[in-house]
Amino acid sequence: MHIRVVVPAIGETLIEHVRSEVAGWAALDTKVDVVSLTRGTASIESEYDEALAAPGILDRIEEAASDGVDGVFITCFGDPAVHAAREIINAPVVGGFEPAMLMALSLGENVGIVTVLPNVVPMLNSLARRYTIERRIGTIRVIDLPVLSLVDRVAMLDRLFEQASDAVAKGEADVIVLGCTGMVGVAAELQDRLAANGRAVPVVDPTGAAITWLESSVRLGLTPSRTTYMPPPAKDRCV
Amino acid sequence: MHIRVVVPAIGETLIEHVRSEVAGWAALDTKVDVVSLTRGTASIESEYDEALAAPGILDRIEEAASDGVDGVFITCFGDPAVHAAREIINAPVVGGFEPAMLMALSLGENVGIVTVLPNVVPMLNSLARRYTIERRIGTIRVIDLPVLSLVDRVAMLDRLFEQASDAVAKGEADVIVLGCTGMVGVAAELQDRLAANGRAVPVVDPTGAAITWLESSVRLGLTPSRTTYMPPPAKDRCV
Amino acid sequence: MHIRVVVPAIGETLIEHVRSEVAGWAALDTKVDVVSLTRGTASIESEYDEALAAPGILDRIEEAASDGVDGVFITCFGDPAVHAAREIINAPVVGGFEPAMLMALSLGENVGIVTVLPNVVPMLNSLARRYTIERRIGTIRVIDLPVLSLVDRVAMLDRLFEQASDAVAKGEADVIVLGCTGMVGVAAELQDRLAANGRAVPVVDPTGAAITWLESSVRLGLTPSRTTYMPPPAKDRCV
Amino acid sequence: MHIRVVVPAIGETLIEHVRSEVAGWAALDTKVDVVSLTRGTASIESEYDEALAAPGILDRIEEAASDGVDGVFITCFGDPAVHAAREIINAPVVGGFEPAMLMALSLGENVGIVTVLPNVVPMLNSLARRYTIERRIGTIRVIDLPVLSLVDRVAMLDRLFEQASDAVAKGEADVIVLGCTGMVGVAAELQDRLAANGRAVPVVDPTGAAITWLESSVRLGLTPSRTTYMPPPAKDRCV
Amino acid sequence: MHIRVVVPAIGETLIEHVRSEVAGWAALDTKVDVVSLTRGTASIESEYDEALAAPGILDRIEEAASDGVDGVFITCFGDPAVHAAREIINAPVVGGFEPAMLMALSLGENVGIVTVLPNVVPMLNSLARRYTIERRIGTIRVIDLPVLSLVDRVAMLDRLFEQASDAVAKGEADVIVLGCTGMVGVAAELQDRLAANGRAVPVVDPTGAAITWLESSVRLGLTPSRTTYMPPPAKDRCV
Amino acid sequence: MHIRVVVPAIGETLIEHVRSEVAGWAALDTKVDVVSLTRGTASIESEYDEALAAPGILDRIEEAASDGVDGVFITCFGDPAVHAAREIINAPVVGGFEPAMLMALSLGENVGIVTVLPNVVPMLNSLARRYTIERRIGTIRVIDLPVLSLVDRVAMLDRLFEQASDAVAKGEADVIVLGCTGMVGVAAELQDRLAANGRAVPVVDPTGAAITWLESSVRLGLTPSRTTYMPPPAKDRCV
Repeated sequence: MHIRVVVPAIGETLIEHVRSEVAGWAALDTKVDVVSLTRGTASIESEYDEALAAPGILDRIEEAASDGVDGVFITCFGDPAVHAAREIINAPVVGGFEPAMLMALSLGENVGIVTVLPNVVPMLNSLARRYTIERRIGTIRVIDLPVLSLVDRVAMLDRLFEQASDAVAKGEADVIVLGCTGMVGVAAELQDRLAANGRAVPVVDPTGAAITWLESSVRLGLTPSRTTYMPPPAKDRCV
Repeated sequence: MHIRVVVPAIGETLIEHVRSEVAGWAALDTKVDVVSLTRGTASIESEYDEALAAPGILDRIEEAASDGVDGVFITCFGDPAVHAAREIINAPVVGGFEPAMLMALSLGENVGIVTVLPNVVPMLNSLARRYTIERRIGTIRVIDLPVLSLVDRVAMLDRLFEQASDAVAKGEADVIVLGCTGMVGVAAELQDRLAANGRAVPVVDPTGAAITWLESSVRLGLTPSRTTYMPPPAKDRCV
Repeated sequence: MHIRVVVPAIGETLIEHVRSEVAGWAALDTKVDVVSLTRGTASIESEYDEALAAPGILDRIEEAASDGVDGVFITCFGDPAVHAAREIINAPVVGGFEPAMLMALSLGENVGIVTVLPNVVPMLNSLARRYTIERRIGTIRVIDLPVLSLVDRVAMLDRLFEQASDAVAKGEADVIVLGCTGMVGVAAELQDRLAANGRAVPVVDPTGAAITWLESSVRLGLTPSRTTYMPPPAKDRCV
Repeated sequence: MHIRVVVPAIGETLIEHVRSEVAGWAALDTKVDVVSLTRGTASIESEYDEALAAPGILDRIEEAASDGVDGVFITCFGDPAVHAAREIINAPVVGGFEPAMLMALSLGENVGIVTVLPNVVPMLNSLARRYTIERRIGTIRVIDLPVLSLVDRVAMLDRLFEQASDAVAKGEADVIVLGCTGMVGVAAELQDRLAANGRAVPVVDPTGAAITWLESSVRLGLTPSRTTYMPPPAKDRCV
Repeated sequence: MHIRVVVPAIGETLIEHVRSEVAGWAALDTKVDVVSLTRGTASIESEYDEALAAPGILDRIEEAASDGVDGVFITCFGDPAVHAAREIINAPVVGGFEPAMLMALSLGENVGIVTVLPNVVPMLNSLARRYTIERRIGTIRVIDLPVLSLVDRVAMLDRLFEQASDAVAKGEADVIVLGCTGMVGVAAELQDRLAANGRAVPVVDPTGAAITWLESSVRLGLTPSRTTYMPPPAKDRCV
Repeated sequence: MHIRVVVPAIGETLIEHVRSEVAGWAALDTKVDVVSLTRGTASIESEYDEALAAPGILDRIEEAASDGVDGVFITCFGDPAVHAAREIINAPVVGGFEPAMLMALSLGENVGIVTVLPNVVPMLNSLARRYTIERRIGTIRVIDLPVLSLVDRVAMLDRLFEQASDAVAKGEADVIVLGCTGMVGVAAELQDRLAANGRAVPVVDPTGAAITWLESSVRLGLTPSRTTYMPPPAKDRCV
């Protein structure tokens, strides 16, 4: 199985980091490669960024389609260009939000998302409504760190714990979902720290959820519905 | 008052047509100018097209912001880049869907949309859910004509009448919304034809709804909420 | 264009005040006249008041219909008799709630209403559900001043600011709607004061929203759907 | 226990008929008296009629309150003035819709209402949304007979059977609710006829549901919540 | 009328207590008998308990069916085995949740449930969603006493008052429903104590609501819909 | 990884069949064993069957917990005893409904379920509401074959194709979910046959969805939330 990971940001700096993180989640016989964008933004933290990144992402989807990959992970929690991508490739495509949130639904009643900045909260609410799961979101919290500051793992973990712990204590969350695919390599430790503090709730890593979701989809032979995701009509396009 | 109309398509051919249509709806003291895109697609009929058009639209929004316009109409029923635009300009921005649908809510119980192609129906359902008005949509019908074929006014009107009339007859629509901003200059005639056939329901033209919505917003001094539409953080962007 | 404003209260004292307020919102070429009731109550602050005011309002709607007015504004945030009125006149009819709330939906995610007394909160919740927009109401606050005390503009503004500011600070509101049409002439100042205190959210005046809504409806040629608002069957009526 | 039945129509002609019907449902030790209106309309078949009948109904509620009755049934399926009434009396008040629909919810999945005229369908949808039970309504059918024609019992039963049977056959209804309190004395026969034709679904009579609902409420010591139904503030009222 | 009360717990100790409580709510001409289980659990405080109790409850339903009783009350607020029971008996069957909650809907806007332990809160939320009334639940509170400790009436009442009073004060409840059928004989006193403290809201006793609900259903001739509750197909069953 | 499959039916006849089917979906390094019940019913086709099977299923869950398995699949589309099971084992537990439906949500807009008998349709609607995904179900169809007749693969496939094809053609389904875990080994062929007939929609096999769901959950280190699924309090239990 061949999975293509699209980092929806310009620059090469994130690629190695993502590659090793994804490798940790993928099955042994899953081949993973990682690409970033040649046009787009340095990170996605607004509707504006998401819109600017979309054409660069779709370039990569077209490549993936012609490369015959089995599945594509656009590694951003805002699911940028995911629905457009499904129109142009016969393989499952996910971002981080949809698989992480759907997995969370099977683990507990109210889902608490902990994300980076207040700027993205309206986008996440919009996604939840688009997917009709808004009634299961108990809270959306922020750690007030931009995506590109997540390299400070200790600060990130402390703030995640603070928000997640408070959300569980107040009865607003039974499951925690990490609300940024840049929050890598902390889910297990956060889950353990919560349990050690009397808050035994599962913590869902969106990268892990996405990779296993794609693997499952491929094994089940499932690709996007062509009555929902119809191929775009031919026309002039100049982008 | 100065309203900027952004035709979210490449090429100059539509500009004059849109300008005269918009002039018909605008108040006498409203100044309207119309621009199209330098990068994008010839029309928007899929999530894919919408994603490709977004950066070109946002170019025009940045111009509008620096020109100090009072309001912006992105003339497409799919509301492309509308939410991203609101993050970067202190003036009301609408597409065709939101103002037309909200006006329709005050006119009758179930809204019937008649649009161009089946390809866009999932997008419209997603928009309706995003705006939380999905329970008021009674039906979404298509006339199976692409956007660029809408120049055949007679065929367009006949098909619109056929679908709208059937939707009203079956109790699926109490108000008709034209589901493409390219369906210009037919709302009044469709409304009359329906009434003449015993189906007295209002027909909402999305261009007219958008222009008057913007004028009202400007007169009321209303601009996008900065707690929902926060300015995007500074970062590298290469698009 | 000729718009009739119905003050749904007995007595003449409010008429001049409403007339000047409405004139401030209306377009230059809109003719506005204002009438009050010959039977009803001094103000509407309960379901009971609303029920007692309805026949007097409908008297005025029948007059408006025979006078051939182009639109009717029943100037109360509880939308009293609005749906009954639509059954008996071929012109758009609105109260304060529907146009203000629908305009607010296009400005931000969660709408916060600030109204007069706790007595009317259940009515507003019922209206929101009737119009299917209840999921967008983030909070309903009260300033605990009865309608007829709103003449003390300073006290009203202070209390409005206190409630609105707190609602925005707590993340319960991205847009403020003034929840009583008696709160005249304060929207802009409240909006400015909120912005000056770091809460840059729009404030919707229901009178302004209603007047521009009617003007837009008239320009768009839209009247109530006759499949939703059917003319009442003939019968004995003695009221 | 003393229950007051308010026929929300002018004239005395219906009183005896209602009295005998209600007596058939009431417990032996329940005292029932029946009054009609001195101002209002001959029947309620529109929002307009409902608005015109409300003050006359509220006259009767005030009498009931001063007479110290234990419960009030406003015998109309549109629940006219029910919420206003609850503000001014310390006793349970119901119309026909609420108790019949809530009883129906415990009997099967989808409720099918069969009512008189298409004019009242939007009112019933609005009530269902107000009470938040709209998702359980499978269909609203009409027999196209005005309220005052329901004296032709054979025609009424035939049309009720036709609509109810079709609704059950199409999977749109698991329970039938008679959608007019004027459809008296037919529920049991309709239920039997449906069962004899292979459609074994319960049929709820709104008068029976209302009377037993009030009796249960009184036995349970339940009266309207004063945080929802606050007493109206004192003021001038001239109706 | 003959009503069978099934105590869904093993052991005889609760029977007399339940019998006298039920007798206090039933009409004079209603015959009530009470049975408990020969297999099951000592009380129901989890999904696990509910699942283990179900076959023992269904034994009792089959007996009730062959005894020809007119209605069955399974006296637990979690409605255990209620829907299975309706498939195998031609008589109305209720638990405590459904009738108490539906009665509460007619009394005020937001319903506050006060139950025993946090363990059952997810079950109650699931029931509310199953019955589609989740939007009317304002809060679910717990008194943190297990079912079998409810014999300490003073402690129970104090904790109920504390939770109910707080819920009303915070605007989270307009009606209180006792969330365990073991909370017997306290509804009226709690209601009085709340009123004496300025919180005039009704308090619904689930046992009283269930008994009067069944009596009403029987008087109205209503039994479970056979299109929702179809008789189970014949097959091997070994339980 | 060690997954335990619980066939929630009495008798050994299905075990081999299920074992080979499951083996086809599981990863190579997943150890699967299959057990059936010592008490319960021959199949589950009603609420009644589900209630009777639950204690026997929970016996198997307790065994699984003491055997230290990593995940449990209760192989029935009605998710029998799934929530009770989660209270008593620290490993993910799924039935067929939840994983199949959640996977389907990522593939297209409206999900069409094709199940065995009309008897189970209300159960599936109840599950959908419990999981809050009811708005995404476009249709529930039946092939009118009992579970134990599904051995006739040709008849099953023909009827599945007939229902699925019709659902897609009418716009009621964009994704098909097989609504019985006894419909084994037909998903791929049904998907192909639909595509060959111009209905290119994915078909989800609930067994495959469940097995891969569990594998993903285990790899992600996710177990049931202990704030939703609390351990049952100690007490007498005699079942």
